[in-house]
Amino acid sequence: MNSGKAVAPGDMIGILGSGQLGRMLAMAAARLGISVHVYCPESGPAFDVCAKRTRAAYDDDEALAKFADSVRLVTYEFENVPAHTAEFLARRVPVRPNPGALAVSQDRFAEKSFLNSLGIATAPFAPIDCPADLVTAAARLGRPSILKTRRFGYDGKGQVTIRDGDDASACFAAVGAAPSILEGFVPFSREISVIAARGLDGSIAAYDVNENVHADHILSTTTVPARIAPATAAAAVAMTAQILNALDYAGVIAVEMFVVGEGAAETLVVNEMAPRVHNSGHWTLDGALTSQFEQHIRAISGFPLGSPRRHGRIEMRNLIGGQASAWREWLAEPGACVHLYGKHEAREGRKMGHVTRVFDGNERV
Amino acid sequence: MNSGKAVAPGDMIGILGSGQLGRMLAMAAARLGISVHVYCPESGPAFDVCAKRTRAAYDDDEALAKFADSVRLVTYEFENVPAHTAEFLARRVPVRPNPGALAVSQDRFAEKSFLNSLGIATAPFAPIDCPADLVTAAARLGRPSILKTRRFGYDGKGQVTIRDGDDASACFAAVGAAPSILEGFVPFSREISVIAARGLDGSIAAYDVNENVHADHILSTTTVPARIAPATAAAAVAMTAQILNALDYAGVIAVEMFVVGEGAAETLVVNEMAPRVHNSGHWTLDGALTSQFEQHIRAISGFPLGSPRRHGRIEMRNLIGGQASAWREWLAEPGACVHLYGKHEAREGRKMGHVTRVFDGNERV
Repeated sequence: MNSGKAVAPGDMIGILGSGQLGRMLAMAAARLGISVHVYCPESGPAFDVCAKRTRAAYDDDEALAKFADSVRLVTYEFENVPAHTAEFLARRVPVRPNPGALAVSQDRFAEKSFLNSLGIATAPFAPIDCPADLVTAAARLGRPSILKTRRFGYDGKGQVTIRDGDDASACFAAVGAAPSILEGFVPFSREISVIAARGLDGSIAAYDVNENVHADHILSTTTVPARIAPATAAAAVAMTAQILNALDYAGVIAVEMFVVGEGAAETLVVNEMAPRVHNSGHWTLDGALTSQFEQHIRAISGFPLGSPRRHGRIEMRNLIGGQASAWREWLAEPGACVHLYGKHEAREGRKMGHVTRVFDGNERV
Repeated sequence: MNSGKAVAPGDMIGILGSGQLGRMLAMAAARLGISVHVYCPESGPAFDVCAKRTRAAYDDDEALAKFADSVRLVTYEFENVPAHTAEFLARRVPVRPNPGALAVSQDRFAEKSFLNSLGIATAPFAPIDCPADLVTAAARLGRPSILKTRRFGYDGKGQVTIRDGDDASACFAAVGAAPSILEGFVPFSREISVIAARGLDGSIAAYDVNENVHADHILSTTTVPARIAPATAAAAVAMTAQILNALDYAGVIAVEMFVVGEGAAETLVVNEMAPRVHNSGHWTLDGALTSQFEQHIRAISGFPLGSPRRHGRIEMRNLIGGQASAWREWLAEPGACVHLYGKHEAREGRKMGHVTRVFDGNERV
């Protein structure tokens, strides 16, 4: 791996991926005087706010080499960066977060094994490579349980619930007969996430814990702070710090967790982690002194981390598909902070924007 | 003038000028899903954050026509847009704020005459077209007084102080023997500015009044709220609203004023106005629910204006020239919001960035 030269304002960094996360990262970099080169096979929202753009495949070594030569370091907006791409770039220029963190989070089996090795609880799980594995595992983990592909799943894609009487072969076919895991059912009371950053010097800064509600497997709303016991929040942050240190991580990470039980009996089960900025941290653009996007740029650049201090109580809601067509009403709501990603086609399930409301104490700002 | 079609997220708008104001405007537009085409004879910081860029002269009608055809409307980051450029574009596409506002603010004589016609006080002034005019005017307005070119002055350029015994011919030569005005001396106690916006529907939203300190004619610090009587602040905002309405204005305006006297005896004298976002409003990026940049984009696009509500007490300081080389120390200050404009050469007097601190009440956030 290339350790690279220090980054300073005026330099250019690279981002893999041209979606809304890349877009908000690029603007955060610009705010710090850093220009951005976006690399992506498809044009997207990030292409509109960067100094340089390359549209090429992730296995186009010539384009990747030129990209690497133009930047001080490379980061990414999504965890499914192909291993070849990450390794090819890392031989030329620092890739942050490091490709090891990427490899762990790309594979649900590797991720859960890694978490368990740190003493962090996950749902019980078993690797599934054929229908017979599924029959055995379902007998052990019980039904309902969830079959998920090891790789390339997001927003509920590549998942199927295994219920009483379901046929193992049909279920395995439903996830494309791909290497998978079966996850035991977790009877959670809430879903939360921790967004935290680790700097090149090992310093860590975490935002207050998010409480998330999903609809159709897609994040619908985030409220902050989460309605959990203070000790539970502290444990969630401590767990995230443990993960960051174990991975010798630089950048922002998101760790999604289930809260099981209530009050003093609350326990935490990690669902998954994302080695990147995260939808549940979008509120930090309007509701915190430092946004998660700037925090990520600071962390990977070796700059001091910024203050994660919150301005008030937060409600963030995603605008999914057609919901963004009500943009004018959102803009008319006093105090609502509206973000639209500039996507031209509002397909079903597509994240088109989000709205953050910042409340002062219990009162609306 | 072309009244144009309504703007919606997904559309492209045009910005004249590629400096830091254009850069922050472009990012504010992107946040609302609007892409930006920047037009400027020189490349600059705004070129790094826009979807499309044209580097061409302001009198290149072919390039201007193509630019106009690519956008729903045109706005600008500086008031010295040549009249030909504004008029050429306005025949093809809406130019906002309107070219009339531009014309008034480009000429100190026209600007002061306009303000006086509204009953708004300015420094006493007289047009100066030759040394003889200067002798007569200085006798009337007293010394010291200030000779300023009517056009193209900013950050103290094109100004000279006329003191006892100064030679009129030498002073007139010092401002390039250009059409000028002589301004009588205003014994002010403070300098303030009002940043306000007027929407296409005539609605007006003003931020709390800024108190500004200049060094070497360049803005050094802005603190909010200004330490003035509530009635003075209300009068400053009312005066600004009067100007916005008189100009049938769309967009953000900045009005710089002198406060004369103290407490209940405070009176206001308008120094100058800028038909654009303004350095003294940069704090709104971190310290208000809606930034001045987003407010400008909302206003010119016919969107509802956003809330100008402040998060706390504000201190903004500019990083001028070499001051930006201490960027790492600024980034290390907890709670300091650092902005760097990505300029490569830190020339003396050049605005390189700014730092905003948001305090909670009298306490530091």
